[in-house]
Amino acid sequence: MVDAERSGIRMRAYLAPATDAAVRTELWDTSPADPTGPRFRIEDIYPCVDGGRYPVKRIAGEAVDVWADIIRDGHDVIAAALLWRPETSNEWRREPMRLHDNDRWHGRFLPDQAGWYVFAIEAWTDWFATWRRDFLAKRDAGLDVALEAREGQRLLSELMPQEEEARRTVTAAVDAFSANNDPAVLLDEALAAAMQKAGTRPDLTRSRAIPLVADRTRARVGAWYEMVPRSQGRVPGKHGTFDDCIARVAEIAALGFDVLYLTPIHPIGRTNRKGKNNSLQAGPNDPGSFYAIGSEQGGHEAIHPELGTLADFRRLIDACHANGLEVALDFAVQCSPDHPWLKQHPQWFRTRPDGSIKFAENPPKKYEDIVNPDFNCDDRIALWQAWRDIVLFWVDQGVRIFRVDNPHTKPFPFWEWLIHEVQLRHPDVLFLAEAFTRPKVMKVLAKLGFTQSYTYFTWRTEKNEIQAYLSELTGFPEREYFRPNFFVTTPDILPFQLQSGEAWVFKSRAALAATLSSNYGIYNGFELLEHEAIPGREEFLNSEKYEIKVRDWNKPGNIKDYLRRLNAIRRENTALLQTVNLRFLPVDDQGVIGFLKQSVDHTNAVACAIALTRDAREFWLHFGDEMIGPPDARRPVREIENLVTGERRQLEWGGVRLRIDPEQDPALLFRCLG
Amino acid sequence: MVDAERSGIRMRAYLAPATDAAVRTELWDTSPADPTGPRFRIEDIYPCVDGGRYPVKRIAGEAVDVWADIIRDGHDVIAAALLWRPETSNEWRREPMRLHDNDRWHGRFLPDQAGWYVFAIEAWTDWFATWRRDFLAKRDAGLDVALEAREGQRLLSELMPQEEEARRTVTAAVDAFSANNDPAVLLDEALAAAMQKAGTRPDLTRSRAIPLVADRTRARVGAWYEMVPRSQGRVPGKHGTFDDCIARVAEIAALGFDVLYLTPIHPIGRTNRKGKNNSLQAGPNDPGSFYAIGSEQGGHEAIHPELGTLADFRRLIDACHANGLEVALDFAVQCSPDHPWLKQHPQWFRTRPDGSIKFAENPPKKYEDIVNPDFNCDDRIALWQAWRDIVLFWVDQGVRIFRVDNPHTKPFPFWEWLIHEVQLRHPDVLFLAEAFTRPKVMKVLAKLGFTQSYTYFTWRTEKNEIQAYLSELTGFPEREYFRPNFFVTTPDILPFQLQSGEAWVFKSRAALAATLSSNYGIYNGFELLEHEAIPGREEFLNSEKYEIKVRDWNKPGNIKDYLRRLNAIRRENTALLQTVNLRFLPVDDQGVIGFLKQSVDHTNAVACAIALTRDAREFWLHFGDEMIGPPDARRPVREIENLVTGERRQLEWGGVRLRIDPEQDPALLFRCLG
Repeated sequence: MVDAERSGIRMRAYLAPATDAAVRTELWDTSPADPTGPRFRIEDIYPCVDGGRYPVKRIAGEAVDVWADIIRDGHDVIAAALLWRPETSNEWRREPMRLHDNDRWHGRFLPDQAGWYVFAIEAWTDWFATWRRDFLAKRDAGLDVALEAREGQRLLSELMPQEEEARRTVTAAVDAFSANNDPAVLLDEALAAAMQKAGTRPDLTRSRAIPLVADRTRARVGAWYEMVPRSQGRVPGKHGTFDDCIARVAEIAALGFDVLYLTPIHPIGRTNRKGKNNSLQAGPNDPGSFYAIGSEQGGHEAIHPELGTLADFRRLIDACHANGLEVALDFAVQCSPDHPWLKQHPQWFRTRPDGSIKFAENPPKKYEDIVNPDFNCDDRIALWQAWRDIVLFWVDQGVRIFRVDNPHTKPFPFWEWLIHEVQLRHPDVLFLAEAFTRPKVMKVLAKLGFTQSYTYFTWRTEKNEIQAYLSELTGFPEREYFRPNFFVTTPDILPFQLQSGEAWVFKSRAALAATLSSNYGIYNGFELLEHEAIPGREEFLNSEKYEIKVRDWNKPGNIKDYLRRLNAIRRENTALLQTVNLRFLPVDDQGVIGFLKQSVDHTNAVACAIALTRDAREFWLHFGDEMIGPPDARRPVREIENLVTGERRQLEWGGVRLRIDPEQDPALLFRCLG
Repeated sequence: MVDAERSGIRMRAYLAPATDAAVRTELWDTSPADPTGPRFRIEDIYPCVDGGRYPVKRIAGEAVDVWADIIRDGHDVIAAALLWRPETSNEWRREPMRLHDNDRWHGRFLPDQAGWYVFAIEAWTDWFATWRRDFLAKRDAGLDVALEAREGQRLLSELMPQEEEARRTVTAAVDAFSANNDPAVLLDEALAAAMQKAGTRPDLTRSRAIPLVADRTRARVGAWYEMVPRSQGRVPGKHGTFDDCIARVAEIAALGFDVLYLTPIHPIGRTNRKGKNNSLQAGPNDPGSFYAIGSEQGGHEAIHPELGTLADFRRLIDACHANGLEVALDFAVQCSPDHPWLKQHPQWFRTRPDGSIKFAENPPKKYEDIVNPDFNCDDRIALWQAWRDIVLFWVDQGVRIFRVDNPHTKPFPFWEWLIHEVQLRHPDVLFLAEAFTRPKVMKVLAKLGFTQSYTYFTWRTEKNEIQAYLSELTGFPEREYFRPNFFVTTPDILPFQLQSGEAWVFKSRAALAATLSSNYGIYNGFELLEHEAIPGREEFLNSEKYEIKVRDWNKPGNIKDYLRRLNAIRRENTALLQTVNLRFLPVDDQGVIGFLKQSVDHTNAVACAIALTRDAREFWLHFGDEMIGPPDARRPVREIENLVTGERRQLEWGGVRLRIDPEQDPALLFRCLG
């Protein structure tokens, strides 16, 4: 177990000077008596989030390209290395860096395991290579270089490598020159190579260390199915169980989903329990909101008895694994007034002048069935550790993904600490931030360590606003730390555009989410076109947040086949398993959005044209100057193949004229051929 | 005197955590036992160079606008302050910051004196304002707020201000509420103001400190006249003197120049002295290059005897001051082989295997009349201090501007240290970097502290390359730290475009330099259209770097009147006394460049159209969407007034049709009227 102390140290270590006295860091950690600071400037390091304050996000097993301006005064030959290591290791690994152009250097490393890493850059002067270059320039200009040769010999002695084999090579050259005074022995390629490899490193300067978190692939790609466990039963009025959930796993897996996300599964409070449609008075049979966590039956580590036992839950996890699904759990950092902690740890809650505990509120709105712990209470360290231990408890049960409810109303340092604490022990654990709030708060949460983030996608419906929002999310610097997960609906949000219940718009929104973003999700009932709203609001009428539902999952008119095909096309086309590779394509119709995605390995390119309005229409999809294929064989798109019908079309005039009939299928998806 | 130790400490202090234990800095300097770090994120601070590693450049007496994203979790009312102080002070001054939009806050401070400053941002939660807002929301919704009122009273006690007057106000409110239970006393505006002003500051978070250097106005604007002192005599073959220079001061001042920049004035070495046209063999009467500094008559603190005495030099400085000119001195960090230091401090120079000292070289080119000290020698601290003391010596003689020769071949930390060392004692001293090298090296030098920088302007002759280069220099982030000084020629550079000697191109280049950049310079002889080059090269034939010249400063065909008018127009139009305010205007002719500048105070706007080729032509100067005037009264340009002829022209179709005849005047300069 790593304690809070370790974590505190970690944050500072990134900014601390190098401990190796031979290395000067760019922070100018000189001895005060000696103002001669670092000779090099190592600037504009990429990738890097807020100067290294927060980790860059990458995927384990995928190479990380690192760029930096490496600048020294004068004209000496310089060299540079990329240093990297797991955060918990003290041993740097080194990769060569090479000058690209205009003082910009490039290196690459491969974080092969999931986890937190740091990388840095070292630069130094290569005195021997400088001598060699200058010697050759003077010799070739016909100058007398006898003294220069002696300087070369002296330099070799001064820079004598430590490494044994190089040392032998260098000693042999020095001795040979002493014997015969022939500069040729100093110009030997093998000698140059030995010096480059094992030479000492004058002016050695190290950049600050940049943190990077390498997540497993599920962080980059996943289709989520959000399920309310108690509504998975088949008998009206009867509370669903984990066994009912297990009964649905095969079907959900067959639809092509990757993640089964469960709303909270813990005991629900009785005090101030909410009734149907969020009413203040619950009837005797109302089950209450599953976000009012905690009762005399237990808190965040307990299971609501009507769902089953912990053993049942583990069977659900096993069933998912057997079907290629994994379970995501809801982590809601709040308590019902009946949560055991209120008695066990009253010091974690803020009391009012009358001795009562303060409910959650958003004045004048009150949430009487929920109380928030006081994250700044005097006993806060124990409180924070208790929350962390709850996450670790569920990790021990086999959960590796947590969808975090409303993280934006808890202190930023809490999340930064908790996520790192968990990932230090279990680098495969992922966190999804469910924060619908101001844009910069959502971005801060992503910087703090949340693996993925909910977005405004749900409310982006017009072409220009979808393009603007996606350009922001896939642009710099957001793409380095913010991974969107596009949900079409949630238990809290039934957006206006779906309230008509028309199949084409459900399909259009699902296709947009599934192709624009490599992470997307639906909330159960979406496949049944559920759309009954509280009038004038973007909320479900008779929301299952406050009642138990029983549905016919094969209800006529459902769009399960459509979702299955979408998920299958995603899996077969790696271009769709990335988000940052998005390029919009011009379409001469405001009602159709067009875009192109190419896989990182350049083997797959997919073009999409998706209808945003209901009318059938013809339009041009233009490919402009977009090229596909590997860097050394880039070529324009010449032909496209419909991924549903298999029909092929040649491009004319740099584009293709298409017909879309949303009632039939609002999304045209094509494989691109060069 | 501040020693090297102080300087070393300074660099680290910017990055060190706050010493006030009550403040958490964004660097998360928490006690290791307590992971609860800073509640706020203070991000994207503007202005800021490389995350605060280097100072932002501003002008003393001009307000500094500061912007930052200030982000906290939750929905509490927050407040923020801008802190600033001279670098050497320990006392922060505070200015309010106000929310602009989208979590972005603004504040402003006025560095009234030249010098180095730091600023930072503090944010905290305003619990009482939060209570007040929530109380009113609940009261206005008709809820029972009796308990809320008691909470407000308790909060006042918890947050009791230290400041006496506020304390009285708060105590009175608390007592009144105890007496009558009337919430109205807690909602009093005076109480809210007292709490806002003097309340304690929960969650107080401080950003990192950002350095800023405020220079005197001459850093932003100046017309430079570069003079070779020994060529100011009137008798052919006779070495010019400071008295000869003094004789020219009134004329140069009358031409409207602000700075008289003198090439080096120190004793010149005899060993390996260069002859005419840089020949290796000097004749007995050849004076040598003034960059081969040092002879038995002294080094960098001495004056070349043929120029006069130190007293004569001070008279020159006085004469300049009397004429509104100031003197800039050349600071060339190199020695002739006869420099006294070679005997006094041989340990400062690198010897070759034969015991000789290494000349400067750029292989295969050798500079036999110059040796460079070894900035990394064991005795480097004494060496660095000796260079600093030379600058301080000339400061004591009244010099406040140094043009530094080839700074890019000396260690970066040396300049960062030296400039700060000097400016700590004399904040009015300015440094101009004469570095013609790779773009990123030139930018690093500017970041290190050079007040102004030479540029590539001399080689930017076509419209698109002038526009691209100026857009780079006036864009972000360059505008925050890089102040260009546009020289049309230097003793080293006679660019190809001037080698025809045609007056129109000399005028065009002078007009471009003087209007595009608020700092510009000419090198003596430019006004006489001197243009004889070494064939095929951009160098002067018979350069006065290697010989003494005597000129007729009123030679027929000179363009002194033209330069006088240019400088007068600059002085009368404050729009031209800025560089970063540049906006290019469309001109339908590749041979004419158009641009608009507006003064910071919005009282002056100038449009320029300058010919880049010789032919007379007519063209449209378009004003597009450009607006002039103060922010609350922006208006399009309606009319322009020729600053030479006084002729006025109304705009038609958003522009004006103009005729330019470069033989007459290649530059049309207009005052813009809204």
